[in-house]
Amino acid sequence: MAPHDAVEVITAKRDKGELSDSQIDWVIAAYTRGDVADEQMSSLAMSILLNGMVPREIARWTAAMIASGERMDFSALSRPTADKHSTGGVGDKITLPLAPLVAACGVAVPQLSGRGLGHTGGTLDKLESIPGWRATLSNEEMFAQLESVGAVICAAGDGLAPADKKLYALRDVTGTVEAIPLIASSIMSKKIAEGTGALVLDVKVGTGAFMKDVARARELAETMVGLGTNAGVNTVALLTDMNTPLGLTAGNAIEVVESIEVLQGGGPADVVELTLALAREMLTAAGVTDVDPAGKLADGSAMDVWRAMINAQGGDPEAALPVARESHVVTSPSTGTLTRLDAMAVGLAAWRLGAGRARKEDPVQAGAGVVWHARPGDRVTQGEPLFTLLTDEPERFDRALESLESGFDIGEGTFTAPDLIIDRID
Amino acid sequence: MAPHDAVEVITAKRDKGELSDSQIDWVIAAYTRGDVADEQMSSLAMSILLNGMVPREIARWTAAMIASGERMDFSALSRPTADKHSTGGVGDKITLPLAPLVAACGVAVPQLSGRGLGHTGGTLDKLESIPGWRATLSNEEMFAQLESVGAVICAAGDGLAPADKKLYALRDVTGTVEAIPLIASSIMSKKIAEGTGALVLDVKVGTGAFMKDVARARELAETMVGLGTNAGVNTVALLTDMNTPLGLTAGNAIEVVESIEVLQGGGPADVVELTLALAREMLTAAGVTDVDPAGKLADGSAMDVWRAMINAQGGDPEAALPVARESHVVTSPSTGTLTRLDAMAVGLAAWRLGAGRARKEDPVQAGAGVVWHARPGDRVTQGEPLFTLLTDEPERFDRALESLESGFDIGEGTFTAPDLIIDRID
Repeated sequence: MAPHDAVEVITAKRDKGELSDSQIDWVIAAYTRGDVADEQMSSLAMSILLNGMVPREIARWTAAMIASGERMDFSALSRPTADKHSTGGVGDKITLPLAPLVAACGVAVPQLSGRGLGHTGGTLDKLESIPGWRATLSNEEMFAQLESVGAVICAAGDGLAPADKKLYALRDVTGTVEAIPLIASSIMSKKIAEGTGALVLDVKVGTGAFMKDVARARELAETMVGLGTNAGVNTVALLTDMNTPLGLTAGNAIEVVESIEVLQGGGPADVVELTLALAREMLTAAGVTDVDPAGKLADGSAMDVWRAMINAQGGDPEAALPVARESHVVTSPSTGTLTRLDAMAVGLAAWRLGAGRARKEDPVQAGAGVVWHARPGDRVTQGEPLFTLLTDEPERFDRALESLESGFDIGEGTFTAPDLIIDRID
Repeated sequence: MAPHDAVEVITAKRDKGELSDSQIDWVIAAYTRGDVADEQMSSLAMSILLNGMVPREIARWTAAMIASGERMDFSALSRPTADKHSTGGVGDKITLPLAPLVAACGVAVPQLSGRGLGHTGGTLDKLESIPGWRATLSNEEMFAQLESVGAVICAAGDGLAPADKKLYALRDVTGTVEAIPLIASSIMSKKIAEGTGALVLDVKVGTGAFMKDVARARELAETMVGLGTNAGVNTVALLTDMNTPLGLTAGNAIEVVESIEVLQGGGPADVVELTLALAREMLTAAGVTDVDPAGKLADGSAMDVWRAMINAQGGDPEAALPVARESHVVTSPSTGTLTRLDAMAVGLAAWRLGAGRARKEDPVQAGAGVVWHARPGDRVTQGEPLFTLLTDEPERFDRALESLESGFDIGEGTFTAPDLIIDRID
């Protein structure tokens, strides 16, 4: 006989109780094998969202999700490992320059990434705009590439935290995404199962982020840092601004281009700043304190790792990237200082142009996206280009323009952008 | 395009908002036709359970469930109609004498009943112990019997509030049964769709009832009376005690026997008291104020309607009822006054003896159940029979005895039982 039943576990949390370790282990295992039905897990998820979980419950829930699948182990590698996870933002291409940069500094980066859903892009979607590049590697290929190149960005295998995969898809359709215990355990179960030695979390805050206010973002960051630390992963989090999109591009191929600019020692200042800050955190968390990553951007060694990394996964780092068939330029309606550029408005526009997907099974356009020609604080001139919209399907321009319409302000005088890095939690 | 989507409705209630009429209409209709999935409705149900609903939402939810199916109409009958609904108790056979009694007083009773699940019995299960009796009638048969006999007790057709049928089954497995808005709308959607002109609710309170405390029972009663009144059904509720089981029997055939005793002018005092109180409420609610139901028990006219009612549905009112193959007598461990007889303990014992079912598809034993030989306030003598347990399967005695063990107290001195009728709400 089963030690628990679904209604018992659901009603315990519904009535504001703490779930026992045994209840958590049972419900995750039973859900994974289908003995707890989707409609039971969704009412439990809603109870967790509304009634919360104490740290012990979240840690056990995470451990149970890890235990639902395989766990990778990179301890046999010749160098330490560090990974980064971003909670998702607009124009957030940081993983692309960051992984080869950290590898160039002597720390291996086993980066399991996802595809985009909704207004935030996915790292794999961006890389798939490179001709020939493939996201799927076997565990053996991943290990070999970490040893030879030092950096891998690939799709998570099906064997990793299958309970999380099932629960993540369920939460998406049942209004139970926005629960800190469930967000934290979802992210951390995958990252801990992935076997990284150190982990840096980039928790985004602002209009374009999942967390709209700093207090909730801090709570999520603290929860995740606690989970990582307890599981023996050296974990630190940065809270970073996502009211403004990162860099000057949001899309797929256009973000790869911007990432390569950074790897070549150029690129927008904010992308460089965040890439270096996260690289320093990853190096420190992995125990490497004597290498300055800025030098590895300047001397081309990060770019060398990028080329090797793309090559190793079948991509041609020198190939021309896809370009959208149609473009539309939006000019500035007045002259002054750009005082606001809303990340959500830009993200929605890029999504509506075809850079993102509405449903998991939808394709994305490699060339679609938004380029903005000024960042908050920059001067703009009436009649000069403010945005360039890119898509293969010109019928998409109208709805993209709609979302940009109220997405920026132009004012007089000077304007100082808020700090990109808001806080650090360890 | 649909006017709403499931996640929008779920998150509105999750975030403590009020659902609009349009959202409620859409979600009930979409759930009925399968466009809203079970896992979406269950997280919405949990949100409703935890965040509540205002009266307007509950009324609209009820109306939408009624609109999901057919609505019966008895206005063409030659007499007024009244129905009774009990929220469920142990030994609650009141419907059996009540329906023919009220019909004998000139008010037609279209009583749609259910089968039992768990420790409370089902009216249809009790009547099905009568050889030949059938629970399923067409709408035309029901109408004809109401005209000719004046009383019908039968199963609700599949066409009545199908949204409620689907939601009721879902709530049972997702820990979302105990939500007053959902309980009230479930009961009232069926009763309003059934087309009765007046309705009396018997809301049970106590250990053997769904509602353990008077405050929650009163809230449920007030909610249901409001729903009925707004829908044009003259509705009143009695709060009645269910700490002690009703009468002296809990089972199927043995409750029919007790009901016939009441119809013959005898029977336990509490069963007679509650039957008469509910009959008077039904008559008053239906506009009949000049008939005393007590006289209709005394003069045999209620018994005449009973015979006609059983006959009309294929049953033989004179046939011998099934008797359990095995019996076991529990004697009183001491001499004194019975000061407590717990309804839940007795209900569980009857259920474990085979009178009830654990799953919807299980059969019940017609002869199984518990007879108690004393009620709280009665004197008991050491070594004399206190309970008789009845079942076809003697291996069931042990677990039934277990549940009775701590289900009664014997003390010294006098003992006054609390009032059977706690409150009246209209």
